[in-house]
Amino acid sequence: MESAKYLSEQNIKFLLYDVFNLESLKQFGLYKKHNRKMYDMVLDATFKLAKDLMWPILEEMDREAPFLEDGTVKVHSAVRDIMRECGEGGWIAAGFPEEFDGAQFPVLFNSVCRFIFWAANYSAGVYPDLTAGAARLISSFGDQKLIDTYLSPMLNGEWQGTMALTEPQAGSSLGDIATTAYPAEDGTYRISGSKIFISAGDHNGVDNVVHLLLGKIDGSPQGVKGVSLFVVPKLRPDENGKLVFNDVTVSQVYHKLGYRGCPITELSLGEKEDCHGFLVGEPNRGLACMFQMMNEARIGVGLGATAIASAAYYASLNYAKQREQGRTLNDKSPDRPQTPIINHADVKRMLLFQKSVVEGSLSLLLQASLYADLETALSGEEREKWALILDLLTPIAKSYPSEMGILSVSQGLQCLGGYGYCDDFPLEQYYRDVRIHPIHEGTTGIQGQDLLGRKVMMKDGKAFDLLVEEIQETITVAAGIEELSSLSQQLSHAMEILVDVTGFLKNLAAEAGKETFLADATLYLDLFSIVAIAWQWLKQSIAASKGLAAGSSKSALRFYEGKLATAQYFFKSELPTIRGLQT
Amino acid sequence: MESAKYLSEQNIKFLLYDVFNLESLKQFGLYKKHNRKMYDMVLDATFKLAKDLMWPILEEMDREAPFLEDGTVKVHSAVRDIMRECGEGGWIAAGFPEEFDGAQFPVLFNSVCRFIFWAANYSAGVYPDLTAGAARLISSFGDQKLIDTYLSPMLNGEWQGTMALTEPQAGSSLGDIATTAYPAEDGTYRISGSKIFISAGDHNGVDNVVHLLLGKIDGSPQGVKGVSLFVVPKLRPDENGKLVFNDVTVSQVYHKLGYRGCPITELSLGEKEDCHGFLVGEPNRGLACMFQMMNEARIGVGLGATAIASAAYYASLNYAKQREQGRTLNDKSPDRPQTPIINHADVKRMLLFQKSVVEGSLSLLLQASLYADLETALSGEEREKWALILDLLTPIAKSYPSEMGILSVSQGLQCLGGYGYCDDFPLEQYYRDVRIHPIHEGTTGIQGQDLLGRKVMMKDGKAFDLLVEEIQETITVAAGIEELSSLSQQLSHAMEILVDVTGFLKNLAAEAGKETFLADATLYLDLFSIVAIAWQWLKQSIAASKGLAAGSSKSALRFYEGKLATAQYFFKSELPTIRGLQT
Repeated sequence: MESAKYLSEQNIKFLLYDVFNLESLKQFGLYKKHNRKMYDMVLDATFKLAKDLMWPILEEMDREAPFLEDGTVKVHSAVRDIMRECGEGGWIAAGFPEEFDGAQFPVLFNSVCRFIFWAANYSAGVYPDLTAGAARLISSFGDQKLIDTYLSPMLNGEWQGTMALTEPQAGSSLGDIATTAYPAEDGTYRISGSKIFISAGDHNGVDNVVHLLLGKIDGSPQGVKGVSLFVVPKLRPDENGKLVFNDVTVSQVYHKLGYRGCPITELSLGEKEDCHGFLVGEPNRGLACMFQMMNEARIGVGLGATAIASAAYYASLNYAKQREQGRTLNDKSPDRPQTPIINHADVKRMLLFQKSVVEGSLSLLLQASLYADLETALSGEEREKWALILDLLTPIAKSYPSEMGILSVSQGLQCLGGYGYCDDFPLEQYYRDVRIHPIHEGTTGIQGQDLLGRKVMMKDGKAFDLLVEEIQETITVAAGIEELSSLSQQLSHAMEILVDVTGFLKNLAAEAGKETFLADATLYLDLFSIVAIAWQWLKQSIAASKGLAAGSSKSALRFYEGKLATAQYFFKSELPTIRGLQT
Repeated sequence: MESAKYLSEQNIKFLLYDVFNLESLKQFGLYKKHNRKMYDMVLDATFKLAKDLMWPILEEMDREAPFLEDGTVKVHSAVRDIMRECGEGGWIAAGFPEEFDGAQFPVLFNSVCRFIFWAANYSAGVYPDLTAGAARLISSFGDQKLIDTYLSPMLNGEWQGTMALTEPQAGSSLGDIATTAYPAEDGTYRISGSKIFISAGDHNGVDNVVHLLLGKIDGSPQGVKGVSLFVVPKLRPDENGKLVFNDVTVSQVYHKLGYRGCPITELSLGEKEDCHGFLVGEPNRGLACMFQMMNEARIGVGLGATAIASAAYYASLNYAKQREQGRTLNDKSPDRPQTPIINHADVKRMLLFQKSVVEGSLSLLLQASLYADLETALSGEEREKWALILDLLTPIAKSYPSEMGILSVSQGLQCLGGYGYCDDFPLEQYYRDVRIHPIHEGTTGIQGQDLLGRKVMMKDGKAFDLLVEEIQETITVAAGIEELSSLSQQLSHAMEILVDVTGFLKNLAAEAGKETFLADATLYLDLFSIVAIAWQWLKQSIAASKGLAAGSSKSALRFYEGKLATAQYFFKSELPTIRGLQT
């Protein structure tokens, strides 16, 4: 097998099939047509598309950043190919039901495809991914006319979809949105306002751009309760179906630290009072619509961060195997040849740290994806259970990979020394690219507030209790496997700490008020995250132990042993940091 | 007072005069001429030069990065002004004795000047700083002819000085240097080889470039014992004093993540067999010469990292005071105006974290600088004492500011949300710039090995014992101040942990061999660093308590209260992380 450049195919299959048992989803009618053979075929096609189309232009897309010319944003010429391939090949529609010509794949599988694209080239993967997210909003909440008009060209990759939320005065505070929708006589709206930081907000790799935009209908209530969702295309079909300019102009393309292959734009809407908007769902219910897809978007951020960290891990691993420098401490005589730096303990530590972050994060993200599938497939109380756990885990699945992804990439860069700081290697780009993730789709601070202030408190702590049960189940299984009993005990102890701290904070909420209660929400998020990742490492260890016991090829055995060693590392070096956070 | 843009003048004076009592150095003959009035005047001139000449071109120097044209590296036109001002104004020679027309300032004061320049513009400050370092090597180890030829134009800022150590196969492993010096009949050498990653290795802002270069005299022993130090100028004075080309060519300017205002070059030496080198000091003693100045260089790295983190802290602090977004948790009604984000607890936490890193690091670096002065001023056992403590502290003073500086700048960037990721604000540049510091002058991994493998072990642990006494003294003083007694106890407990861990590791060295002993050296460095910074916060708290007790202006009182609050933060949130590292 060719040495991995940015991800491990073996790890992906291990997680999908051994840890999360993707095939078992067949029991639900929704996924009954999919079997392993089909999944493997699509996986292979996804690996190939990522490798052939996205990976080769990773650096080019960064160096030749998008720019504004004659009112249009010019992007790398390959963006059109990528959108077409992802459209015609079915990736944009992969998660959509058959009625929209979708493959109806489970989220668990779709998340892996997103990860593969992003590991090859984060910016490149954003175009189709954003389009799928925007299309899903239309398919979930739009009327038949919107669906008929917009869905097919978006899912085919001919039109770009975007999420247009942020305004200069309304970043984290979406209730302060000022973009206004004035009702027109034809039942549509005339939009006036401006939006900032809109990813893929315009570009010449597609024939049209469709903004899923938050705005306020003139006269609607203040705050979040007056926010509505609209479809606002760059070009709108006129009565004859001909595309005409819809008064959406790009006023700026931002110059960013990284993630440069995809333009982030400032949009001006209705400068000529001819910007038509089409309401999606009920008036004043825009934020609720948007939040229904927020879980998917936030898991997407976690996947993107993990994917970049994965690419950085393999880049530094490959370097460390080849780069010779210095000698081992036990034999330093200068007449010996130099040793590959992977033989230095500190380099090994940096690589193990990366592996623990990358594979721990991916596991948690797939866990969350599986919960999303269970929520979709089931109903009643069962559905509510998985929905609650997913809601609780989402801020963690968004933030841990984003925050630790930065540290992980930084350690990857460090493995290369001075070369890591120069653009002869991709590490410096990964370091710039990955920094976006703790910011977009809700900053880490917002995620902390969401976790502690809403998710832990909702339904009197029911979600928290349900997750504790889930984790307890893993602990119990591991306790029955001899080589995992120590890890099982350690996680059990960590859970006690988490439960204690949570109880303490809930009391604080009652006694000292919200401001005090939430002051350390980000630290609580850190603590919770580390426990959650330890849980995932224990889960992976169980699957690896089974694999070892079953006997297998030499390379498989080495893979399983690597899993167990990394779990040991995480429990020894990362899990104890909760003791510092506990205070 | 104008709001600070990149540093706090008040903090600098507090550290110099209240914490480290700069004036008391007058007791030593070397510094007897310097008084507070003089220091204040030079400080003001330094603030002004940084503000007028360096700060305004911070972004320009980044955007218009150096490039190679017609064999010369073209840099920003202001570099010539900066070198001239720093030369003629006396900054390059500030630390040199009077015999070289230097101001003979203590290291403690010089470190502050380096910090001020670097906070305004890191790249700009590197040119004069490198020149001073190279000139010091010549003044310490060069013969009279070298001193007569090179010192004056370097100290005047007409010639650039560099450190030329690294080669493709010899990065961290300097013993593997292959650049060869062939003895010539005239007693000089002909140099042949190549060097990489040489900062300011060539540029058009000076009339000549003088490389302090490590090479091997043909036939010398293998490894570090065969390395010699040479002066290798770009242009050498011929017998008539006319500058002629010395066969040093630039083959490449690296494209770097940050620190772009200063070129890093690849040099080719002796392609035409006419590269003259001049031995500095004894043959085969080059590494010893180089290491004598390594303390200064490594403290310089710490200062540079702290300076960038300081600039990022003030940029994010000023933004947080002005940017209005959201409402406080206790009153979220949308008809209230939005609040400046500094009122959000999580933003406050991010700012406090930065302040604790920046001011804690600067304090430690000035502490190390003071030890350097005591070493210089004293003799015999006293001298050895301070030399040992300085040796022990140096890897910490290099690494903590570098590693935590990255996290600190990242939190600064985070305070700005999406704006922090764009180049409308300087945060993204600081984020790129600061990443160099854990790499150059010995990576963090190397510093960990140095701390545990050499410094802690040397002279049977004498340096460690002496530092423990120093810290104990601070603990004792703080114990006598009521409001500091709890912090004093906490540090005392942390010291017990540090002493225990150190003892454990020393036993491990004896029992399990070097490889095992040093495997976790970087984690030991982390633990030691946090304790050292806590010590500095306790020291600052003592001075702040005295200031509060003495009564003072309203702004001074607020400043002292800010110090105590930050110390509380550090002890509550940062110090406990040693519990995770202890295991």
